Amino acid sequence: MQGFSYPLSPKGIANLASAPPWHYAGTSINIEFFADPAAAAACLPEGLTLEPDAPGSGAAAFFDWQYSGDHKEYLDPAHACYQEFFVLINARWGNEKVAFCPYIYVDNDAALARGWIQGFPKKIGTIHQTRAFSLPDSSATPVVGTGGEFAVSASSRVGYRIVNGRITLEKKVEDPSALIGRPVVNMRYFPRLTVGQYENPVVHELVLANMLDMQATDVWAGTGELEFPVAVGEELADLNLQRVGRGVRMNLGYTVTEVKTLVDYTA
Amino acid sequence: MQGFSYPLSPKGIANLASAPPWHYAGTSINIEFFADPAAAAACLPEGLTLEPDAPGSGAAAFFDWQYSGDHKEYLDPAHACYQEFFVLINARWGNEKVAFCPYIYVDNDAALARGWIQGFPKKIGTIHQTRAFSLPDSSATPVVGTGGEFAVSASSRVGYRIVNGRITLEKKVEDPSALIGRPVVNMRYFPRLTVGQYENPVVHELVLANMLDMQATDVWAGTGELEFPVAVGEELADLNLQRVGRGVRMNLGYTVTEVKTLVDYTA
Amino acid sequence: MQGFSYPLSPKGIANLASAPPWHYAGTSINIEFFADPAAAAACLPEGLTLEPDAPGSGAAAFFDWQYSGDHKEYLDPAHACYQEFFVLINARWGNEKVAFCPYIYVDNDAALARGWIQGFPKKIGTIHQTRAFSLPDSSATPVVGTGGEFAVSASSRVGYRIVNGRITLEKKVEDPSALIGRPVVNMRYFPRLTVGQYENPVVHELVLANMLDMQATDVWAGTGELEFPVAVGEELADLNLQRVGRGVRMNLGYTVTEVKTLVDYTA
Amino acid sequence: MQGFSYPLSPKGIANLASAPPWHYAGTSINIEFFADPAAAAACLPEGLTLEPDAPGSGAAAFFDWQYSGDHKEYLDPAHACYQEFFVLINARWGNEKVAFCPYIYVDNDAALARGWIQGFPKKIGTIHQTRAFSLPDSSATPVVGTGGEFAVSASSRVGYRIVNGRITLEKKVEDPSALIGRPVVNMRYFPRLTVGQYENPVVHELVLANMLDMQATDVWAGTGELEFPVAVGEELADLNLQRVGRGVRMNLGYTVTEVKTLVDYTA
Repeated sequence: MQGFSYPLSPKGIANLASAPPWHYAGTSINIEFFADPAAAAACLPEGLTLEPDAPGSGAAAFFDWQYSGDHKEYLDPAHACYQEFFVLINARWGNEKVAFCPYIYVDNDAALARGWIQGFPKKIGTIHQTRAFSLPDSSATPVVGTGGEFAVSASSRVGYRIVNGRITLEKKVEDPSALIGRPVVNMRYFPRLTVGQYENPVVHELVLANMLDMQATDVWAGTGELEFPVAVGEELADLNLQRVGRGVRMNLGYTVTEVKTLVDYTA
Repeated sequence: MQGFSYPLSPKGIANLASAPPWHYAGTSINIEFFADPAAAAACLPEGLTLEPDAPGSGAAAFFDWQYSGDHKEYLDPAHACYQEFFVLINARWGNEKVAFCPYIYVDNDAALARGWIQGFPKKIGTIHQTRAFSLPDSSATPVVGTGGEFAVSASSRVGYRIVNGRITLEKKVEDPSALIGRPVVNMRYFPRLTVGQYENPVVHELVLANMLDMQATDVWAGTGELEFPVAVGEELADLNLQRVGRGVRMNLGYTVTEVKTLVDYTA
Repeated sequence: MQGFSYPLSPKGIANLASAPPWHYAGTSINIEFFADPAAAAACLPEGLTLEPDAPGSGAAAFFDWQYSGDHKEYLDPAHACYQEFFVLINARWGNEKVAFCPYIYVDNDAALARGWIQGFPKKIGTIHQTRAFSLPDSSATPVVGTGGEFAVSASSRVGYRIVNGRITLEKKVEDPSALIGRPVVNMRYFPRLTVGQYENPVVHELVLANMLDMQATDVWAGTGELEFPVAVGEELADLNLQRVGRGVRMNLGYTVTEVKTLVDYTA
Repeated sequence: MQGFSYPLSPKGIANLASAPPWHYAGTSINIEFFADPAAAAACLPEGLTLEPDAPGSGAAAFFDWQYSGDHKEYLDPAHACYQEFFVLINARWGNEKVAFCPYIYVDNDAALARGWIQGFPKKIGTIHQTRAFSLPDSSATPVVGTGGEFAVSASSRVGYRIVNGRITLEKKVEDPSALIGRPVVNMRYFPRLTVGQYENPVVHELVLANMLDMQATDVWAGTGELEFPVAVGEELADLNLQRVGRGVRMNLGYTVTEVKTLVDYTA
């Protein structure tokens, strides 16, 4: 039986996630927020602490993604294309500035599988973002330029709206390095299904995402709006946003081949 | 009760399709085909005849659409964004070169409603196309340029794959007027629900689509591949493709406010 | 070209809705409500008036449906099975007690097509109801009996929860005739797509649903709970529920072959 | 952070799968098949061998499920209700008769999560089965009795039909113990995301499913029909069915609290 992830199979082509490299290209809309610091801290795993310089700060990130392996897998767009929404909480790993992802939603099971393997705790949802087309005369598209407005939204699989947001572009950012964000720390986690051991997972480790060959283009920054409506089965609204900051839109590409283990709690 | 389409309501905001103008912006992938002429002719309604210069010719068109009214409705992307696949058969209305749409699929009920009102016989399906991102270093996106490869696919709501296609771009087209296609003739049709009158519809008219302010950008042409797999509940495969022609990719925008009635069969 | 509804096709098998008879079998959960009378009246079309004996009364109905034609079409369950939620407002057509359906949601495009043809203004949504299985020892199913609790919910296609409800069964109803509900009056409506004529539809008629061979079994009545959360693009919450009444669960079957036109507003 | 599975959260209510017990109630349609023995053997993991008495034998199982925890979670039907299709291959674990599940599809992410934790390699798909309603006069439902016909189907998330089946009931089975099937052995598997270690998973164990308080009611057996169409990204068709056997329909309930580890390949 062959394959990298479920389901293994004789030919190794049925698996949701084949072995890396995993190449990603997409358009991102990112909205900075400042949550209630205690609520944000409650979302961090053991080993991470709240960012001391801006406690409660974080971001809601929306991605219109296209995945590929090394063999033009983007030519299977029903598999390759998906939308994603996730929350990042700014944190520290020792002295290192990082961000942690407590909540993330995708509309594609292969993306869910790759996510879990990286430590992204993905659920299925429906996610949308306003798109831009190079059609100067059209009333159906914003411009990627000053004054361009873009909206984002996501709903849980069971049908609750969980986030609404909007950005208005102000200026192009020539050096996006400050905007691409902190290194992401995730928690890889796989439960044990043994009576009395439900809180003793088989896999429980903090890992650092390693995003190779990162490239950002067409980076624009402006203002942001964001809300997390109350939704049954979700805890996003508990972040209790105090303030919303910058909105950013860009194209982003990178490659994933591995994660770096920071700590293995099962050891 | 207010509204343009179902459901009318006190405030007029529940309707699937509000009154025009309907602005559209999107990315299109279009693959020319040559079907069995008899099979293509069997898809034409009374009043249209097969294109004599290329009998059986037509196109499979895929659109990644964004809809808007006059008030930035693209800021509700869960409503505004959708994917579409349709078939066009080249035909003549008298001497006029037109194209007729026998089959069309969308993943959005508001788009279905606007479609029916225009005479597009839409069903719900899942549709995808490879996307391009301006990320020169990424392995997850084709280039919009020579050699760029894009794939398309669609499946019926009940879960049969109904089309697979691919294009390879060869050269940019400076004057896209020849590629934008013929005027589209649709059949508006609404059945009568009366015993003995099932074949006597209330609405039955041929109409000419009127696409205002059409704009095409980033037009590239190349080669195409296309197949219509056999699927229960569908008749696409019966088109019995003999040959596949050109593949084209472009951004396309236009506005719809009305259709022009060519003939009213109920009169 | 053959078929009863969109899309007509050479063989007549591609159409969403083939010609009647349309047989339905399903399980219904029905929750009586008393809305703000003015809000309920605002949902009624010209020709109907609010029920004078209980102004604002109505029901939220949830159906787990199976459709068939005369040829065991239930053997295509991806086509035949669907879930539905709709609202009925008690009204009068002259002196006749009827109910009008302003809002209705299904998860199946064929059901949407049959609905529009009958005058049900269907949108696509996701709808669920608790199910019962004959497994006396199971903790995963309520009993169809005293104390059995069943919940219902629906969300709009764009991802807002639009209704939550619950019933608790109290007693079996031997004569369900009083519970099956009033005759349903619908509005068949198809817009004109002509500038200046947007409010002058081609089809605009009040019709009486004719449900043949109606059969109800396993009818249980009890108490009900119901809420219509606020949702963008919907007006259910505007019904402003004052009180919730009886909850009923039953199996229901009937056949549709036609509607009876009460008034044609285009004549 | 609390919870049993992804995502852990401050209150522990966001997780897809909360800690067991997991109670299940549903209606099952099960179709026996005889695959090419070599193809069936290729689907078995190390440690299992093909059933010597009927090499290549197995079953396609379809479930209309309702999940609950101990607190009437069936009152959240959007979460609790789902459909499932899976394949079982008859095998031996030493001398013990077991069945192994190489492929399984659900339409619910919580069910996917519980599945992975048990070792069921679930992907998202769409699954349907004909349902029965106690409506003797209806043409829209089969009888649960002699001659009753039920169909099943499933499609992959990317839109390929992957299975079609049908059963015709012949006789009620008073003692269903022989039909409930063999103990199920699954492979719990979670990959390592480290370059050079892609084939060295963190979790890799054979486990025996422990289905507690199993109850079967309304068990009927008859004949079956089954096909696995060719589908991109799937390997079901490679099972190369030689013959189809019995069809069975029943209600089934059981509870899961743990799995029993047979062998841990990482030890």
